[in-house]
Amino acid sequence: MAQKTKRVDIFDSTLRDGAQGEGISFSVTDKLNIVKALDKLGVAYIEAGNPFSNPKELEFFEKVKGLTLKNARLTAFGSTRRRDAKVAEDGNVKSLLAAGTPVCAIFGKAWDFHATEILKTTLQENLNMIDETVSFLRENGREVVFDAEHFFDGYKHNPAYAIEALKKAAAAGASTLCLCDTNGGCFPDEIEAIVKAVKQAVRGAALGIHTHNDAALAVANSLMAVGAGATQVQGTLIGIGERTGNANLCEIIGNLQLKRGYRCIPPENMSGLCAAAHAVAEIANVRLNKFMAYVGKSAFAHKAGMHIDGVHKASAAFEHVDPAAVGNGRRFLMSEVGGRSSILEKVQKLDPTVGKDSPVTKELAEAVKALEYRGYQFEGAEASFELLVRKYLGAYKPFFKLEKFKVIAEQNTGEAYAPATALVKVSVGGSVELTAAEGNGPVNALDIALRRALERFFPRLREFKLTDYKVRILDSRETSSAVTRVLIESGDGLETFNTVGVSRDIIEASLLALVDAIEYKLTRDQG
Amino acid sequence: MAQKTKRVDIFDSTLRDGAQGEGISFSVTDKLNIVKALDKLGVAYIEAGNPFSNPKELEFFEKVKGLTLKNARLTAFGSTRRRDAKVAEDGNVKSLLAAGTPVCAIFGKAWDFHATEILKTTLQENLNMIDETVSFLRENGREVVFDAEHFFDGYKHNPAYAIEALKKAAAAGASTLCLCDTNGGCFPDEIEAIVKAVKQAVRGAALGIHTHNDAALAVANSLMAVGAGATQVQGTLIGIGERTGNANLCEIIGNLQLKRGYRCIPPENMSGLCAAAHAVAEIANVRLNKFMAYVGKSAFAHKAGMHIDGVHKASAAFEHVDPAAVGNGRRFLMSEVGGRSSILEKVQKLDPTVGKDSPVTKELAEAVKALEYRGYQFEGAEASFELLVRKYLGAYKPFFKLEKFKVIAEQNTGEAYAPATALVKVSVGGSVELTAAEGNGPVNALDIALRRALERFFPRLREFKLTDYKVRILDSRETSSAVTRVLIESGDGLETFNTVGVSRDIIEASLLALVDAIEYKLTRDQG
Repeated sequence: MAQKTKRVDIFDSTLRDGAQGEGISFSVTDKLNIVKALDKLGVAYIEAGNPFSNPKELEFFEKVKGLTLKNARLTAFGSTRRRDAKVAEDGNVKSLLAAGTPVCAIFGKAWDFHATEILKTTLQENLNMIDETVSFLRENGREVVFDAEHFFDGYKHNPAYAIEALKKAAAAGASTLCLCDTNGGCFPDEIEAIVKAVKQAVRGAALGIHTHNDAALAVANSLMAVGAGATQVQGTLIGIGERTGNANLCEIIGNLQLKRGYRCIPPENMSGLCAAAHAVAEIANVRLNKFMAYVGKSAFAHKAGMHIDGVHKASAAFEHVDPAAVGNGRRFLMSEVGGRSSILEKVQKLDPTVGKDSPVTKELAEAVKALEYRGYQFEGAEASFELLVRKYLGAYKPFFKLEKFKVIAEQNTGEAYAPATALVKVSVGGSVELTAAEGNGPVNALDIALRRALERFFPRLREFKLTDYKVRILDSRETSSAVTRVLIESGDGLETFNTVGVSRDIIEASLLALVDAIEYKLTRDQG
Repeated sequence: MAQKTKRVDIFDSTLRDGAQGEGISFSVTDKLNIVKALDKLGVAYIEAGNPFSNPKELEFFEKVKGLTLKNARLTAFGSTRRRDAKVAEDGNVKSLLAAGTPVCAIFGKAWDFHATEILKTTLQENLNMIDETVSFLRENGREVVFDAEHFFDGYKHNPAYAIEALKKAAAAGASTLCLCDTNGGCFPDEIEAIVKAVKQAVRGAALGIHTHNDAALAVANSLMAVGAGATQVQGTLIGIGERTGNANLCEIIGNLQLKRGYRCIPPENMSGLCAAAHAVAEIANVRLNKFMAYVGKSAFAHKAGMHIDGVHKASAAFEHVDPAAVGNGRRFLMSEVGGRSSILEKVQKLDPTVGKDSPVTKELAEAVKALEYRGYQFEGAEASFELLVRKYLGAYKPFFKLEKFKVIAEQNTGEAYAPATALVKVSVGGSVELTAAEGNGPVNALDIALRRALERFFPRLREFKLTDYKVRILDSRETSSAVTRVLIESGDGLETFNTVGVSRDIIEASLLALVDAIEYKLTRDQG
């Protein structure tokens, strides 16, 4: 006998509803990579696009056939046939079949107002559209998920009609009736009451929930629906989507699987949740919101001195779950509210004899405060902070000196924009080296020239690579001369270094961060 | 007789719990400005800091006495006295009085585990600490809000002790017993059940709710608590705070006041919600999350073609509230999923004869796609988009030509870092002008030189001012030569212009955006 496990099917729409988020644009390759990441994580359904919307989508559905998926069922998205059309001749329905996926998700109207005012059709014809489209796709061997668009608003206005729409889809063979809060305005208590009522009215049907975050309630609404009996949750892994976004699946999976005992993804994959979120953000070219629950960079970052002390005593004191359960990590932030205990932790790694009340701890705390005031931030620049600590411990000597540099960027009448040129002179001990380089802009030219000059003295710098370069204008109201903070991530294949530079001049800020990164690499090589 | 209005007191902790958010650091001036913004919006309480934590806080409490507040009661935050200390001699309690605010909020332990394991004291002494501290502050004329730290986790482990802690505070004269989900891990159904139980157990006391967003449920949990009888909601206006942040008050005010009929702030101030959120974000020097409900830039941004068509037919079709109710606005995004109808709206403003199927509409849609592919984004650069439309309509002639430029940035042995120098040559009609300027870095030097050169021909450029300058590295993995997008906001006192430039070279990207801004200003002046 099959054991009764509480199971929730995760239905990810990053590639469809997610693509409707502001600033999101996926290439075919991006889409294939996201399919791989989601399948690896172990979601049950991947809604991969609307094959009717543009030619890029069809190209994707052709290419995705080459992938073998381990966990997920690929789903094409479309709508019920057009009003007064023959289902077998409807372009949208034909493209759903052409996509060749095992599952089709189709949306239909469950709100009478939308049938008459947006579709401009009759209530009966809308029901026919649902019935015929689901039946036709079933006859063609597809599993069909029926998305009842605007279900909750529709139910509030005309419950009988909303239920009738669901019953039509169920009778025609839909595997799941997904109740959508398309405008994202419902409250958790409403969602709970309506899902319970639907459960009674449409007995035996599997229900899904699809929420949007317009009232900042998408995650809560999804949980309430599952509590009331829904077994499929639709959303997007990192919450991207139309307007404020879709229900964030990372947050829902964390909540349901770690706290309520549901199986959303294979348990052995839970510790890959954080990595999956970062992979999707990276491919989508968005910065993962660092304040995101469970997977955000700040989700387990402690700043207040009292909290840091508390977590040292007992981690459960200020953490709702173990960060490792989702592959995230605990961080103690350095700042004026953090006090000396966060600084001390780092100092003691270099010199265990230093205590909380040692003069050097106090001096460092003062120095951090002063640098933060000027725009520095060491929270994301651990390597620069370690160099600072070494300087205060007297355990630091610079490996090289940047004697001088000159960068020229120019464009002459009638000519195209030319590469920037940089001259760099460095000295190591008594020897000097002068080099020149061209690059895409002044920072790139300087970066190339500086490393070329130093490689003569430090051949292992060839292992050194910049892996990330970020610019933040701190007081953007002061415009082109505002304070600029540059954060550089670099590495040598063994370790990653984060460094920071701050100046009113982007070139100086970049150089400071770059010099720190190189000094840190050389310190490491020295052992 | 007083009329029975459903009223919820908003208790803002941006300056206290919010200051514990990663990346947040307030100066005394910042804090004073945030107090003004919150009071103007009309919150009931402003928790302004912990006077015991550092000298900057006391300086602030001294200066804030000079402000006259219209709506809010200023609150100083601290804790119950130390274990085994005399309350009148406790440094933290004394600093609360020294702060001189009408209200004190003090946190105390309601979870037995925290009393014994973190405070290392007895359960009885912890109750004494609550009793004596509340009593002492009441005797000194203060209103006292008692924050029962970790209340929900405490209640789950030992409900009797958690309730006893509350009763002590109530008996000693606390005006509100605030139930805190300090670790942010509770679910809405738990919050509802526990608040109801407390309401029964501690009859007559006013209850508050203080939630954190670790499970992405802070807003939902606050709403559930209010539904169960809480009358004070603690949070931070834009959700900043320790780890994932505190309950977001903008989202809570929007939900409670627009949808459930509670009075959170004066009704006439609701349309100032968006402006207040932006002001606090600006002062806190953080980017307001554009996907934030109600007040985010994308909260009412429609991208999918079907949604845009739907909203044109009936705005309620895809909007849960009227954006104007919170001072936000509707936006139609231009993108490949948006299709031609979003582009058409802008084109028709310049030429009403152009239709959806006109060749120029199609050409423009193709051009937008191609530019987006290269890294352009017109969503935040309306002025650049208008120039693009003018070019395609044949209604654009450039006012000037940038003939050539040269920028030099350098540092010589033994010298300090010098200003960058720029040379610029422009031609207008047959006349040329050559100028030079120094600036903080290459972009600033070019900006100054270019405008100086053009002012001879266009004196009204003296009105032109850059007001914002943002840099985004698009593919940061390609490091110092990655594609850079520069967004410039400028204005002339009458209008604000947003322009964009994209290049692998930050100088070229900045110049493209700057030239667009100047051309747009000159187009406007021409009328």
